[in-house]
Order: sequence, then C-alpha cells, then structure tokens
Amino acid sequence: MLKPETRKPGSDGVSPVERLHALVAADMTATDKLIHGRMGSAVSLIPDLARHLIDSGGKRLRPMLTLAAARMGGYTGDKHINLAAAVEFIHTATLLHDDVVDASTLRRGKVAANLVWGNKATVLVGDFLFSRAFQLMVETGSLRVLDILAGASAVIAEGEVMQLKSESNLATTEEHYLKVVGAKTAALFAAAAESGATLCERGASFVEALRRYGENLGVAFQLVDDALDYSGRQAMMGKAVGDDFREAKVTLPVILAYARADAKAGAFWKRVIEGGPQGEADLEQAITYVEGTGAIQETMTRARHYADNAVAALEPLVHSETRAALSDIADFCVERAY
Amino acid sequence: MLKPETRKPGSDGVSPVERLHALVAADMTATDKLIHGRMGSAVSLIPDLARHLIDSGGKRLRPMLTLAAARMGGYTGDKHINLAAAVEFIHTATLLHDDVVDASTLRRGKVAANLVWGNKATVLVGDFLFSRAFQLMVETGSLRVLDILAGASAVIAEGEVMQLKSESNLATTEEHYLKVVGAKTAALFAAAAESGATLCERGASFVEALRRYGENLGVAFQLVDDALDYSGRQAMMGKAVGDDFREAKVTLPVILAYARADAKAGAFWKRVIEGGPQGEADLEQAITYVEGTGAIQETMTRARHYADNAVAALEPLVHSETRAALSDIADFCVERAY
Repeated sequence: MLKPETRKPGSDGVSPVERLHALVAADMTATDKLIHGRMGSAVSLIPDLARHLIDSGGKRLRPMLTLAAARMGGYTGDKHINLAAAVEFIHTATLLHDDVVDASTLRRGKVAANLVWGNKATVLVGDFLFSRAFQLMVETGSLRVLDILAGASAVIAEGEVMQLKSESNLATTEEHYLKVVGAKTAALFAAAAESGATLCERGASFVEALRRYGENLGVAFQLVDDALDYSGRQAMMGKAVGDDFREAKVTLPVILAYARADAKAGAFWKRVIEGGPQGEADLEQAITYVEGTGAIQETMTRARHYADNAVAALEPLVHSETRAALSDIADFCVERAY
Repeated sequence: MLKPETRKPGSDGVSPVERLHALVAADMTATDKLIHGRMGSAVSLIPDLARHLIDSGGKRLRPMLTLAAARMGGYTGDKHINLAAAVEFIHTATLLHDDVVDASTLRRGKVAANLVWGNKATVLVGDFLFSRAFQLMVETGSLRVLDILAGASAVIAEGEVMQLKSESNLATTEEHYLKVVGAKTAALFAAAAESGATLCERGASFVEALRRYGENLGVAFQLVDDALDYSGRQAMMGKAVGDDFREAKVTLPVILAYARADAKAGAFWKRVIEGGPQGEADLEQAITYVEGTGAIQETMTRARHYADNAVAALEPLVHSETRAALSDIADFCVERAY
C-alpha cells in the first residue's frame, strides 16, 4: 500500500488526476487533436453538437487510463492515441444517448444536447461518434483491442437497459445495483485500461492487473458519484445534486436509506420514487433521510473497498510515477467526497 | 443486358428476391440462427425488444446481398454468416434509432418499438445490437470488413443527420436529397455487398462491381420507397402510405411536385410541410398533387436509372444464377411499383 501521506490529494495543491495528466501530457494533446479532427464532418451539425459535450470540461479520465496503461507497459508506438480517442468517443456517445433517454436537463453544468438540438440529432451524433470510435480502432490493426471495446460497448448497453428496470422501483436490490454499475460504468474503465495495456508486449498478468484496476476504479467512481448526488455538503458548495433523485433512479444511497426507513420515511420514498411528481422540498427531505440513515457514509465505505481493490491490483507491477498517480487517483476518487 | 423475359417478376409466380433467397437458403438459415443467438442477453428486455423488429417479416435483403456476394466469389468459409448477421444488426439498430427520433408510429405494420418499450430502451437496444455487430465482425478476423462496415455506419449517421435538415424544409434540393439517400440507405447496401465480396479472393474489380451494384440498388430502392409513400394505388391496395408526409420529410416526390406547383398547390405544400399540423384530408390532397404533376413517374424514372446502373455493374462478372437473381432484383425493385 502507498504511504498515507502520498495519498493526500492536494498536499502540494495538485490532485493526482492533474499529476497523471502531466505525465501523459504530450499524448493527451495528441489525443485531443485526434478527437477534434475525427469528430469533424461535412455535416456541420455533427461537430457542433459533439463539441458541445467534448469541449465542456470533462476530465478525460477514461482516455487517460488508456494512455497511462500504454505508458506503464513501455509502449513506444502511436496506436494508444487512436485508442484513447476511441474510448472518449464511446464515452461521449453513451452520454449523448443517456441524455436523450433520461430526459436529463443538465450534463456537466451545461444544457443537455437534446434540449438544444433535439433528441433526433443527439441520438444520431452519438451513433456517428460510436462509428468513428470503431474506425479509429480499425486503424490500429489490433483485433484484440476491437474485441475488448466492442465487448465493453455491448455490456454498457446491457447495463443501461438493466438500469431501466430499477428506475422508480424500490424493490431494486443492492446486487442488481452493483451489476448495473459494473456494466454501465466499470466496463468502459476496465476496457480503457485493458486496451492500452494490450498494446504493450508485457504478458497477460500485466494486462489483467490494469483491467482489474480500471474495473474497480470504475465501480468506486460510480458509487462516489451516486453518493455525492445526495450530498448536502455538495449542495452547500453550490454543486448540482439531485439528478438521480429527479429521474427516480434507485441508487445505493436510496436502497440503503429505504432499507432503514421508518414508516413515515418509507411512505416518503414510495411517493417520490414510485409515485407521482416530486415537490419543491422533496430533494431536501431526501438528502436529510439519506444522510440521517448513514446511507451516504455506507456508500462511501463500499467505494473505499473498490478503491482499495484498484490500488491492490497495481501492486504487483513495477513502481513508477504513473503507477503511483493511478493509485492515488483511486484514493482521491473516494477522498474528494469527504 | 439480360433478356426482357428473364426480368419479368412473377412470370413463374416467384419474385427474384425469393429466387435469391432460395439460392442462399442454407446460408440464410445459418444467418438467422446466428442472429437469434447473438441478440440474446441475460437482460431479457433486450431480446424481447429486438425480436419485435427482427421477427417482423423483413426480407433480410441486406444480409442476402452479403451472402450472394460471397457465393458469387466462390467463398467456401463461414465468415459470410457472421457478416450477414452483422449487417442485419446494423440495419436493425438504425431502424430502432430511427423509430425513436422520428416518433414514427408504424414500422412494417407493427407498432413501433418505442411506443411499446419507450424511447429509452429502444435507443439502448439499438446500441446493443450495433455493438454485437462489431463483435461478429471481430470474430471474422478481417480488418478490411471492419473498416468497410465501420465506415458505412458513420456515413449512415451522417445521412440521417443530413435528412434532419431537409425535414419541414421545402428549400431542400434534389442534390441534397440524393446525398441523403446515398448516405442513409445506399451506404449499407454497398457495404453489405462489398464486405461479402471482400471475403473471396477475387481481386479489386470483383469487389468494386459488387459494391457499385449494392450502392445503385440502394438508391433505386429508396427512390421507389419514397415514391410508393405517395402512391394512390398503394393506398387503394390497403398498404400504408403517407409516413414521410406525416413526418414532413421532403423526399423527391415532394421536391418535384413543389417545383411544379401553381400558387394554390404551393401554398398547400407550405402549410402541410413547413406549417402547423396537418388535417385529415391533407394526405389525399398531397397524393393528388404528387401524382398530378408526374412527380411519382419521374421519381420512378430516376429509380430506373439507378437500377440500370446496378445491373450494369454486374455485367463484367461471370454469369451465374446468383448474378441473374441480383440483376432481376434491381429490375424488380422498380417494377414492383407499377
């Protein structure tokens, strides 16, 4: 395990995500250039709409995993740039389709694409980016990489469909929820790291270590995300909360809070998640219940478990700045929430 | 050119599509089996929704082109089965996404999937099938085939986005319309034939002939489809007409009818295509205008041109029953409309 002091984010004012970004800066610049080049089309609505999401300040965490994995394996070619761009395109396509299907109104603080351009264009631009992702992968000439990312894409879609079942459904179990998270989020984190590692000639255990890192980081990341959506502190800091609540998604904080609810709280959850429209004060009440039952804390404890797994997955690998940054990102992912 | 009598559809009661189907029957059975196997998922909503469209009696024309091309090239392996299933999955994914985005209510006479399962699930099942298509292609081990179909998928999405521009827009030019048709329909016909041909070791001119056949057949097919949507005869036969009209799509029959409209007809088109809601009698009026201006006939004349190109593309190839059936399909595609 890393020493506690190296885990502290921001002790030098630099988060481990920024540290990793600096380590792969040249590759990330090349990836960004490729992303902007390949999202182009003579049909101008496509880059206009794609840019809305791609340039909205996302951290590029997934493509960074691809670049970091390739770097850790001593890869000296340039196929990892294609892969990283492909991973970001798949992620963006998923977000675009998610915007449409969930009728969500905000994504990264901007008005969701479907509200500006309509559902129609949003779905189709997602399809375009998804196709571009496969074109980028074909250019690498690696069938293994295509296999990994095509498989992950199918699993992501399965995860999103599974999630539909749990919407407005308080009977959703923790087991179902974890399956959804494993599919809709962790599969792409895992594939991003695995595909980058595959480019290196470092053998199966190297690839598997990075795949497991990505998978566990992905679960931790989603658990924290779902916890923060009910965080009163987050709300006080002026950050958006309540997206999941408004969409009646049954995430772990709700599953845990509902399991611990008294009659009054139980009736509340029934009404706001399974019943009719929510009122103005309902989100605040939901946050109070989620925090009061320790559901946030417990969700974070689970996230900590997966973050530890992610860190442990990297331990057999040779120590390097990149490995340290990846480890610290797993810790940071959980600690940012406290 | 083929002799006229061989072109006649139905002189022996068997359409050339049925003849081609019989020629590739064993491969088509294997393809259908693979399609049904691979649309499966532990997430039961996925096969339930996919089956709704896949088992709704589509002719499987696109995968048949793949199988026919492989057969013509003397291909003896089994990768064409994977490819044919992949082509059908891409087609199905496109239809599912089209159902969502166009809010269309009927597809092949059944209630559209989005009205039964909702937009959300419909988009995601499309994504799942699209991913499965790429998995099937990866299994063939042919990067060339992946390149062809990933490229076609991007072009299809571009075509669908281009089409958005022409919706409710009477300024749409014939040139724009043909670009849309080339991208949203002909690209997949071309890729279906080209990818099947690529499996054979028959050289570039063989592949190019089949690609050109597919492309021209695709344009002819779409032109006929767009003409029939305004066909009074079709309406009298109890077949659905007016889908494009209700969606205010500006297809060639409308472009031509509008170009020839007098003041009264011009005002009508402005109101029903660019204006507010359509009334009960508007479709009948639209058909009268389209037929009265010769716009149907002229659309069919253009279709004939592309069908002839398709037939001509095959002429350099060795004569065979399969080649004859493909030629006849191009003719039949246009003649079925008279």
